[in-house]
Amino acid sequence: AMVTLLRRNPEIQPLLAILQVKRQKDTCRINYFDICKELLKLNNDPKVHGVYLHLPAASLTSRVLDAPLKVKSVLLVGGEGPLRLALQCLIERSGVEVNTSHWNSKSLQTQVHLHLFSNLTVKDCNRWIQNQQYRPWRLRSLKLLPLTPVPSDIEISRAQTPKPVDQLAEEIGLLPEELEAYGRNKAKVQLSLLDRLHSQPDGNYVLVAGITPTPLGEGKSTVTIGLVQALSAHLKLNSFACLRQPSQGPTFGVKGGAAGGGYAQVIPMEEFNLHLTGDIHAITAANNLVAAAIDARMLHEATQSDKALFNRLVPTVNGVRTFSPIQISRLRRLGISKTEPTSLTPQEVSAFVRLDLDPSKITWQRVLDTNDRFLRKITVGQASTEKGQIRETGFDIAVASEIMAILALSDSLKDMKDRLAHMVVGTSRSGGPVTAEDLGVSGAVAVLMKDAIKPTLMQTLEGTPVFVHAGPFANIAHGNSSVLADKLALKLVGRDGFVVTEAGFGADIGMEKFFNIKCRASGLRPNVVVLVATVRALKMHGGGPNVSAGAPLPREYINENLSLVAGGCHSNLKKQIQIAHLFGVPVVVALNVFKTDTRAEIDLVCQIAKTCGASDAVPCHHWSQGGRGCLELAQAVKEATRRPSNFQFLYPTEMPIVEKIRTIAQKVYGANDMELSPEAKSKIDYYNQQGYGSLPICMAKTHLSLSHMADKKGAPTGFILPIRDIRASVGAGFIYPLVGTMSTMPGLPTRPCFYDIDLDPDTEEITGLF
Amino acid sequence: AMVTLLRRNPEIQPLLAILQVKRQKDTCRINYFDICKELLKLNNDPKVHGVYLHLPAASLTSRVLDAPLKVKSVLLVGGEGPLRLALQCLIERSGVEVNTSHWNSKSLQTQVHLHLFSNLTVKDCNRWIQNQQYRPWRLRSLKLLPLTPVPSDIEISRAQTPKPVDQLAEEIGLLPEELEAYGRNKAKVQLSLLDRLHSQPDGNYVLVAGITPTPLGEGKSTVTIGLVQALSAHLKLNSFACLRQPSQGPTFGVKGGAAGGGYAQVIPMEEFNLHLTGDIHAITAANNLVAAAIDARMLHEATQSDKALFNRLVPTVNGVRTFSPIQISRLRRLGISKTEPTSLTPQEVSAFVRLDLDPSKITWQRVLDTNDRFLRKITVGQASTEKGQIRETGFDIAVASEIMAILALSDSLKDMKDRLAHMVVGTSRSGGPVTAEDLGVSGAVAVLMKDAIKPTLMQTLEGTPVFVHAGPFANIAHGNSSVLADKLALKLVGRDGFVVTEAGFGADIGMEKFFNIKCRASGLRPNVVVLVATVRALKMHGGGPNVSAGAPLPREYINENLSLVAGGCHSNLKKQIQIAHLFGVPVVVALNVFKTDTRAEIDLVCQIAKTCGASDAVPCHHWSQGGRGCLELAQAVKEATRRPSNFQFLYPTEMPIVEKIRTIAQKVYGANDMELSPEAKSKIDYYNQQGYGSLPICMAKTHLSLSHMADKKGAPTGFILPIRDIRASVGAGFIYPLVGTMSTMPGLPTRPCFYDIDLDPDTEEITGLF
Repeated sequence: AMVTLLRRNPEIQPLLAILQVKRQKDTCRINYFDICKELLKLNNDPKVHGVYLHLPAASLTSRVLDAPLKVKSVLLVGGEGPLRLALQCLIERSGVEVNTSHWNSKSLQTQVHLHLFSNLTVKDCNRWIQNQQYRPWRLRSLKLLPLTPVPSDIEISRAQTPKPVDQLAEEIGLLPEELEAYGRNKAKVQLSLLDRLHSQPDGNYVLVAGITPTPLGEGKSTVTIGLVQALSAHLKLNSFACLRQPSQGPTFGVKGGAAGGGYAQVIPMEEFNLHLTGDIHAITAANNLVAAAIDARMLHEATQSDKALFNRLVPTVNGVRTFSPIQISRLRRLGISKTEPTSLTPQEVSAFVRLDLDPSKITWQRVLDTNDRFLRKITVGQASTEKGQIRETGFDIAVASEIMAILALSDSLKDMKDRLAHMVVGTSRSGGPVTAEDLGVSGAVAVLMKDAIKPTLMQTLEGTPVFVHAGPFANIAHGNSSVLADKLALKLVGRDGFVVTEAGFGADIGMEKFFNIKCRASGLRPNVVVLVATVRALKMHGGGPNVSAGAPLPREYINENLSLVAGGCHSNLKKQIQIAHLFGVPVVVALNVFKTDTRAEIDLVCQIAKTCGASDAVPCHHWSQGGRGCLELAQAVKEATRRPSNFQFLYPTEMPIVEKIRTIAQKVYGANDMELSPEAKSKIDYYNQQGYGSLPICMAKTHLSLSHMADKKGAPTGFILPIRDIRASVGAGFIYPLVGTMSTMPGLPTRPCFYDIDLDPDTEEITGLF
Repeated sequence: AMVTLLRRNPEIQPLLAILQVKRQKDTCRINYFDICKELLKLNNDPKVHGVYLHLPAASLTSRVLDAPLKVKSVLLVGGEGPLRLALQCLIERSGVEVNTSHWNSKSLQTQVHLHLFSNLTVKDCNRWIQNQQYRPWRLRSLKLLPLTPVPSDIEISRAQTPKPVDQLAEEIGLLPEELEAYGRNKAKVQLSLLDRLHSQPDGNYVLVAGITPTPLGEGKSTVTIGLVQALSAHLKLNSFACLRQPSQGPTFGVKGGAAGGGYAQVIPMEEFNLHLTGDIHAITAANNLVAAAIDARMLHEATQSDKALFNRLVPTVNGVRTFSPIQISRLRRLGISKTEPTSLTPQEVSAFVRLDLDPSKITWQRVLDTNDRFLRKITVGQASTEKGQIRETGFDIAVASEIMAILALSDSLKDMKDRLAHMVVGTSRSGGPVTAEDLGVSGAVAVLMKDAIKPTLMQTLEGTPVFVHAGPFANIAHGNSSVLADKLALKLVGRDGFVVTEAGFGADIGMEKFFNIKCRASGLRPNVVVLVATVRALKMHGGGPNVSAGAPLPREYINENLSLVAGGCHSNLKKQIQIAHLFGVPVVVALNVFKTDTRAEIDLVCQIAKTCGASDAVPCHHWSQGGRGCLELAQAVKEATRRPSNFQFLYPTEMPIVEKIRTIAQKVYGANDMELSPEAKSKIDYYNQQGYGSLPICMAKTHLSLSHMADKKGAPTGFILPIRDIRASVGAGFIYPLVGTMSTMPGLPTRPCFYDIDLDPDTEEITGLF
């Protein structure tokens, strides 16, 4: 029995019952229902005048708080004051339905119990109650004293001392047991928080997207960070930024960090950009376990009889032969309802043991979080131990793994586990999909991913909380941070708060996928879109010369040129605003100001943006000034959330695949139509046949143009969007048409930035990372 | 200036000086020398009656505590009481030489300062003093109530609630700032501890090794854990276990976990066996960055002129052209002392830009922590973007990376950085070694490894502290846990304490390498060797039938058979004891008792072991009883440490390579001689020519026999040890002769254990992992 009436304690009070609650040996669950029942019994015992409830320490962990109670019943509760409060808490936690009217308050003397009821429990219950309720945070802002000229990112980051992460967590209302620190500056947050704050209303949900960028990027991350710095440190509103975890590979190639820049950064930037809390490493391990399982399975199938395979797959252990649960799942999918291994017919044995993967139709690649171009196309299995089973395949960068897309779209551990099981790794020779569950590996993959599903808490330069979680590749996947981080943040900021999340690439890609894929998975509805623009990118869209990384900027981008700016506003900016309006969401344009921008250029952008339908358009100076430089944007966003947002999807999922693609091509990209290659056509037939026809679409298109042609700037029209091929991420839950060729493994240039990266062994400081 | 005389505070005392110490913007260092100087100046100012020292919060972090002071000078100190104590602490920390006789105690009134001196500092200093001194820990043991029959490992692990890791850390005398928690159950420990406890004497150093094992393993890890459980929880002696981090790959293959077993385990075992604190992931990232750099560099050299390469490698940035420090290092090695890029001659440019790697002589492999047999031999570079630069190579399991061996042998961040720079990745066409530093990548590799160098603290089932750190492959590397973990543990346990560390494989391999390689690198001297034996393995060595994994044990191993036992004792056990004695270290034989062992068998082993020279020989029952079952061993080990240990190396490093190999072959393995293949001979010539001749030897030999022939049990004699080939890990610092073929990438069987591994999404509990 979990609940023991330990003794009537003579030391305290002759008629006091001590109710000691013990954990069951093999579980951490506390059965609150049993406790309440026991309390009720004592309540009805006229000899008992008091109850001392002793809960084990572990009962305060979130694991227990969240443990769902299977039995539901009605408990009658009454009485007044703290005891009643405490009991109600217990009851709430237990999931038992409550009727407060019939509690026998005579025998349960609240005056007595006020003192005798475990202090710990009363304190805990009060805290519990308190923490369910919305309150403005008492967030200690970190003071920023911006210097001119603006120092390097790493210098700015290092000059600021972050708050200890447990202090930050306390400030934003997290319980200590909901936090798993990883060193001093970052911590994972447990998903149980979602249950605890279940009844808390969500805060405002703001998406930062951008116009079509130059190859240099236009500063969406810095705007995201600057905006939350302004909202929290200056307007004193609860606010949270949700960012993607950057891939580590490009950090050592050409890209540098991704923690923002100037006075709008996540700190410490080196921790943000390196291993973080190991999520991408977990994805690499999980992805490659699936890959190893595929090739090993093909080898074993190629070299063994049905009988030998069956004897090994379902061995006799201590005289007993049973299917493991994951094998039972496979049997069910094969339409075999037997559970006794020896009862299978030879045909059933053969169907069970042979995945019969077609080596030419394996879609699963290995991954590494390293820019290793020589792994783009490789031949594996050339050692003699693999008996000639060689095969051409390749490695992608780790963030391109379907498991990363799944991490970003899952809304619970169970949901993630289901998605992982459904991942399709290839096709059998008879044409059916083969899943990770068929390989028997999806449970192990879930085990490898069990910590990665918890978002990582960090902070901005001004002490605003930030969730860093998931970073799926923005072309072959949806390029948005995780659903779970957004959900947790929306609960934490509460009713009047703001969660600012960022979509990769231009709004035609990142925002479209945010709405049609991420919001569909999460059920969340955005209130405002912040559309980031720069004078530089607008000039490019207005007809300015080519902008490319590494080359010096042409004169047009340094000197005032109002006609180019106007041209860009009336083409790309206008079109991107219209795209957001297709989804019924108001738009605030944030002009990320560079020091070469003139007053007239800035004014012109803001003026035209408003005539194009933006709710507001404001210049932002976060890079040089931090949150203070984003105050105008913060006010505009706050204002815009008061406007009605009539969110709607662009297409219903039940629309045929071809029509969904056409809708995006025409309405979002401005194409006349799209055309399918023969490969794409046959893939669509196959996906329809397999029942994947109602998945949403995740276009793999260049981000450098609204069209498929990277050099067509502004707002191209009159083109036909060519669909070269179509693939599916069944576990993640989308179909991705390929418009052109996407590189999924970056390379190292002649002088990678690792030449400048070093560690001072005395101070442990990193140099040259950015 | 870092130290500011802020103001004479009129509120507190007219003549009180407030000395405010500020951090310099770009560093965390506090210059204690400057503080002391300033204090001295105030001391000599007759107008100042008191000093209020205000240290920044960050001054309490270990980074500051450890910052070595470059300037050394003499400071005169006097006075009495807490202030003097505090000042002395400051001075001690600053590394300044102290002469306490001439302090002007008149003007520095200690009575006044007692109150005015920053409370924080005084408290901190007192704690500081206290923590330098040896004390028996007040370790809270976790109670163990062993069940019969012994439940599964995971059930035992889960039934025990570990102490929060910060509590454990406090119990063993760690300061909070020396700990970096990773969740609740594990934490990294900062190396600064070594400086803080510099003057603390080391504890006793115990090595657990084993006789030549059966393929099933004989329980060295469980003995290691059981022994520290006995020493700490039962004998109340400070003690620490140092274990290797297991490779994650085999966890999903055939092996299962490595956290011990039964009632001698590290908990939580699932965290021990999975990602832990990400060290192996860091090694994977670091190793593969080097690999990517090799292939990318070969591609760029193959497709560009000297001039183009030079322009890219040393670009003009904002009109300035400079070498990065790592490039200057390369120039130095090339004998070029110039630092001005434009002053290089065309020959010098060519020598600088062309590593000219010979593709057929690249020794660096990629790694993954996955059992992926299809990566054993692969062809890379087959995508058209790599312009036909295809090459055959392969992946090893991550723990086989040289970086893992380096992690295990480094004794500081600086030492690790140096070793990483010296790693040889291949040979140039002209025959010279090419290093990671030549590739420009070794600084970045050190950055990726900067957290991995800190050992991870966990605990046993009975609450004893455990360091888990590094796990180099035991054949091609030295198979021992890290030097740093052992050093930290020896300081933490102090004078009368015990550190128990484990060597992989049989004593002929793991122990020989522990002595000749690890102890040489660390300078540490072991006090006792615990030699683990089982009746099972002894019977095998005595002539029993073949033992193999998966097959049922032959009858001889289940029924009493004294003559087989005696045969094993007089052959393998005796020889392994003699090997330990070669190094001058006393041996305690630990017989790991199985339930089929009879009383007579146990007694026989203990009796013969003692006649063969063991200081003692005792049966161990830790698996079924925990620490209590290892009490006899703990007493025997304690007793043995009182015996003199006259440690000596088997060979001096300056002995020629051939002689070093012969010495090991003859003295350790019992061979008549060894013979070198032509490849091995020419490699030895090459290594001598390159100056690697004085590196110690790391034999890559089967662990299943004292000889090179796995089926020769007992103590074979009269054989010639064939050396097939020789390789070098120059960064790690050893040469490894290959005796036979070593697989460095395990594979997956037909039914890998991942079939049983699953995650309960409600409780987050893992099933089937062990």
